[in-house]
Amino acid sequence: MPMTPATAGSRTPLLDRVSTPADLRRLPESDLRQLADELRLETIEAVSVTGGHLGAGLGVVELTVALHHVFDTPDDILIWDVGHQAYPHKILTGRRDRIRSLRKPGGLSGFTRRAESDYDPFGAAHSSTSISAALGFAVGRDRLAKTNNVVAVIGDGAMSAGMAYEAMNNAGAMDARLVVILNDNDMSIAPPTGALSAHLARLVSGKTYRGAREALKRLGKRLPRGLFDKARKTEEYGRAFWSGGSLFEELGFYYVGPIDGHNLDHLLPVLKNVRDAEQGPILVHVVTQKGKGYGPAEASADKYHGVVAFDVATGAQAKGKAGPPAYTKVFAESLIREAAADEKIVAITAAMPGGTGLDLFEKTFPDRVYDVGIAEQHAVTFAAGLAAQGLKPFCAIYSTFLQRAYDQVVHDVAIQRLPVRFAMDRAGLVGPDGPTHAGSFDLAYLTCLPGMVVMAPADEAELTHMVATAAAHDDGPIAFRYPRGNGTGVALPARGVALPIGKGRVVREGASVAILSLGTRLADALKAADELGARGLSTTVADARFAKPIDVELILRLAHSHEVLVTVEEGSTGGFGSLVLHTLAEAGALDHGLKVRTLTLPDRFIEHGTPDGMLAEAGLDAAGIVATVLGALGREDVPAAAAPLRA
Amino acid sequence: MPMTPATAGSRTPLLDRVSTPADLRRLPESDLRQLADELRLETIEAVSVTGGHLGAGLGVVELTVALHHVFDTPDDILIWDVGHQAYPHKILTGRRDRIRSLRKPGGLSGFTRRAESDYDPFGAAHSSTSISAALGFAVGRDRLAKTNNVVAVIGDGAMSAGMAYEAMNNAGAMDARLVVILNDNDMSIAPPTGALSAHLARLVSGKTYRGAREALKRLGKRLPRGLFDKARKTEEYGRAFWSGGSLFEELGFYYVGPIDGHNLDHLLPVLKNVRDAEQGPILVHVVTQKGKGYGPAEASADKYHGVVAFDVATGAQAKGKAGPPAYTKVFAESLIREAAADEKIVAITAAMPGGTGLDLFEKTFPDRVYDVGIAEQHAVTFAAGLAAQGLKPFCAIYSTFLQRAYDQVVHDVAIQRLPVRFAMDRAGLVGPDGPTHAGSFDLAYLTCLPGMVVMAPADEAELTHMVATAAAHDDGPIAFRYPRGNGTGVALPARGVALPIGKGRVVREGASVAILSLGTRLADALKAADELGARGLSTTVADARFAKPIDVELILRLAHSHEVLVTVEEGSTGGFGSLVLHTLAEAGALDHGLKVRTLTLPDRFIEHGTPDGMLAEAGLDAAGIVATVLGALGREDVPAAAAPLRA
Repeated sequence: MPMTPATAGSRTPLLDRVSTPADLRRLPESDLRQLADELRLETIEAVSVTGGHLGAGLGVVELTVALHHVFDTPDDILIWDVGHQAYPHKILTGRRDRIRSLRKPGGLSGFTRRAESDYDPFGAAHSSTSISAALGFAVGRDRLAKTNNVVAVIGDGAMSAGMAYEAMNNAGAMDARLVVILNDNDMSIAPPTGALSAHLARLVSGKTYRGAREALKRLGKRLPRGLFDKARKTEEYGRAFWSGGSLFEELGFYYVGPIDGHNLDHLLPVLKNVRDAEQGPILVHVVTQKGKGYGPAEASADKYHGVVAFDVATGAQAKGKAGPPAYTKVFAESLIREAAADEKIVAITAAMPGGTGLDLFEKTFPDRVYDVGIAEQHAVTFAAGLAAQGLKPFCAIYSTFLQRAYDQVVHDVAIQRLPVRFAMDRAGLVGPDGPTHAGSFDLAYLTCLPGMVVMAPADEAELTHMVATAAAHDDGPIAFRYPRGNGTGVALPARGVALPIGKGRVVREGASVAILSLGTRLADALKAADELGARGLSTTVADARFAKPIDVELILRLAHSHEVLVTVEEGSTGGFGSLVLHTLAEAGALDHGLKVRTLTLPDRFIEHGTPDGMLAEAGLDAAGIVATVLGALGREDVPAAAAPLRA
Repeated sequence: MPMTPATAGSRTPLLDRVSTPADLRRLPESDLRQLADELRLETIEAVSVTGGHLGAGLGVVELTVALHHVFDTPDDILIWDVGHQAYPHKILTGRRDRIRSLRKPGGLSGFTRRAESDYDPFGAAHSSTSISAALGFAVGRDRLAKTNNVVAVIGDGAMSAGMAYEAMNNAGAMDARLVVILNDNDMSIAPPTGALSAHLARLVSGKTYRGAREALKRLGKRLPRGLFDKARKTEEYGRAFWSGGSLFEELGFYYVGPIDGHNLDHLLPVLKNVRDAEQGPILVHVVTQKGKGYGPAEASADKYHGVVAFDVATGAQAKGKAGPPAYTKVFAESLIREAAADEKIVAITAAMPGGTGLDLFEKTFPDRVYDVGIAEQHAVTFAAGLAAQGLKPFCAIYSTFLQRAYDQVVHDVAIQRLPVRFAMDRAGLVGPDGPTHAGSFDLAYLTCLPGMVVMAPADEAELTHMVATAAAHDDGPIAFRYPRGNGTGVALPARGVALPIGKGRVVREGASVAILSLGTRLADALKAADELGARGLSTTVADARFAKPIDVELILRLAHSHEVLVTVEEGSTGGFGSLVLHTLAEAGALDHGLKVRTLTLPDRFIEHGTPDGMLAEAGLDAAGIVATVLGALGREDVPAAAAPLRA
């Protein structure tokens, strides 16, 4: 592949010559330090424009260079766990020209993605999947009699998830030839919790970890090439001396490390030997520093885990527009008020105290929040145990991550009718994080469960009431979902009031068209009603509040007194609209004709974009609602532009 | 509590005096050996009548006696993982009088169940939940300033699941006071796989495990009482000597063992010391033998894991009625035929080779089946990795257990459109195993996923075709669900033929009523059509075959040409019927009136019973279908008995 000539005066002359890893592999090792520095610079500058995940990528700049230099990607399979640390990887694998489109509509994904590049053999965005996938690649390779290498890179936080353990346990037993790089930065999104963390800290023991020479000696045991034949026989290399990695060794992995993940002189020889080892799974314990090499990130408590656009010189992040409070914050503050009144309330997070707002809760009630690590399955059943003991647990997990604990919701909570409260943030479309993070399915996977109460607030004041409702509801499970982003700016009550379970409310009375909205689509439903009114269609707007139990009385009333009934929800089929249809069918309300339509997320994964753009694409904005109503009335021909939407 | 006087001539004189654990605790330790023997006898005799899980219970008879003697149940919390080993526990906790109703309609559950007894503080049936629940109880206890003990008993197989690791990791970090008994019988349902297994085997090292005296010495380190103060200072008790349990120690547990789980002289002192230890999580490694003390079980390969009624003297199990082959077997044989023609086909099971039929597959293709252990999350993403590598993986997991891997199905398979084939056995109601094992939600949680194909065969010949369809469908994920039990007896094709994706079939043409069935409810739909025909209602019966993609053309044709349309599925709302309703609504097919009804599982958990009884209770049998049609036509008043159902 031809190299791009270095641009005169470029700050990244070496990087300018690297279009693909093949170019990188042609560089002498002595150039790699400079290449890494340029890659770091490019990463910082790109993210300063786009925003996104920065700290994790900066931590693996040297590792990324070393991996692509030592391994023959993409024939050798390289899987980045979570994928949010893969920006440097994207820059080196033919995507530098689009790197400033990261997370933008139509641009590069903020995670690894099979559809985006051959260098992304397995996409990710949720954590802890890489070892399972890598084992699949390794076992498949052996069945197909191929000889390529398979490498997974996984963080110490991700290693606390059960599926990583399941995969290690299975890989160890199968003695499959694969390499797992444990990227130990002692901090995933939040400071780590869990005994595994303590174990790793002991291994690193005061940062005086081992250098390449010692790691090489250890690898000598594994290598068949004879180089270390004498050495391996000496007592020095016996298990006792290297007992540090025992947890991994007990799971059947050959443990190498810890080594300095920012030192290419350590990384390169170890990775080469690992590549050339001919048997069994190997774990290479690499110690890195999140945010490495960028002062403002290193100095920051969260190491610039996720940032908005910022000034490279100062690290100052662009300020968000002043506006209504985020739903996350309203949830946290509402929960604090409820907890002040009821000491049985406790809160659980799975390694997301900041994202869920429970960091605020913790400031007020430090001993009433439990961060269980990246461990959603455990989080839910732990909460069930707390509920069985008589406490009132609020389990705050993003809608998309609660998928990880679905069986626990069914088996441990719903079947036992235990009063666990699920606070599901990031419900619906989530903007730049894209389809892996969208909370699209919670309404379907929860409303099918007997005894489950499912709510969605129309605005932040409603969220406050729903937190109060959940606190008061103590005879079974209850869940509430709310979106990413800011509220609508309504006045907030001093404290929420428990709502009657299963009752919606009519927000605006009309005559011919009824829009029944669940959740924050209400604002667009009201806009649509304005538009329809301008066209002479008197429109009722109702806020269902509850996806389950459904408000049968309200639904039948709307059905009987309107020509058109449209439901709106920011979720897939199988959820709220489905229950409305089942209810109407069962009651015979469709027997004599009803122009009923259900607006849900479409039956495809919606790529990342702006929230408004994604909602429009899904047909869930005011224009989509209006078009649906007009379509039901056979009036599609009337152009919507005839009466522009009022804000 | 008054003791029941011993029955003259009873074979269980001591057990006859034990109504509750309080009675048991009044017995001198010297009586416990005999009590255990009587308890074993009673367990064998009860299960010989009822059928059910036997081997696991027999393995923990002594442990059950010892736990209730040492701990103050139910104030002390005792949680049995999975719960199928709890029959002896039920006999000792006030349920002996109903023990011969186990798994019968209206009788005792085959698992632990909160609603059944105060001695079942946390129900189970799926594996590996107990440590999470126990940690919830322990943390809750501390918050409520109580002092009771919390004990979880978990098998070595269950310990291979990720959520057990998540819980251990969290418990270790929280340093919570709880006791985990690792019941190591080196065999869960199938021979164990995984590195953990090898680790445990090393610990037990040739069965020369440690006795109570040594375990006590080890506990001495933990106990504050001074008894072992001198001993603990000696080198003998140093970590190096006891390094065997390092995996658990690295997770923050204090490891004690292994000890002989059938020797009360070993169990009792160790449990007492554990009870009186005042800090941190302790793991007691107990070695037991599944099926212990009953010759036929000990001699059997599966240790009588699950049995039907049997003769106590000989162990001979009642023979099932000869009949059509089980769906499980038809699946396995169909897959063998497909795999013979396509060497890219491989199969994955999560510790259920027998239950899924993959043991048959393994006999033909020993190197093409992967048993990953009780690790559904890993199983699915491992399969996704295999698919990404170009193989054709069939992931055979019960419908209820696939809930454990929901996020992996969404994030690793569906979003990436990887061609993983999901064979979901035990879909719908499952009879004596009850609600925890029912496959009720798969249609809801899978049909909401973009790009997922979901099929359900009407009979075993259809299953053969669907296996062929799944083998041929290589551009995205595909799932098929089939029930527990035997087929209908139809002729089986030599090999299945791939079906057109998303197309149903009309089985019988009629004029006024249409029944659209998904899956094996078809037989009852046809019976219902007979009944309706006898009432003068000409009835069309269609087999949807696909829950997704839905056959829009067929559905609209049925809607347009019939007065009544009833869908039937053995699943919750949110699945097939919901998609039919969405489709009808979107197409405007409800605008002018359609008597549409959706028969699904009702919105409650159905207790264990006979399959036919449960289907009738759910209203999904022929009578239920007929009643629904008549109701839609306003003819409920015509008694069904007027024209009895034809078989």
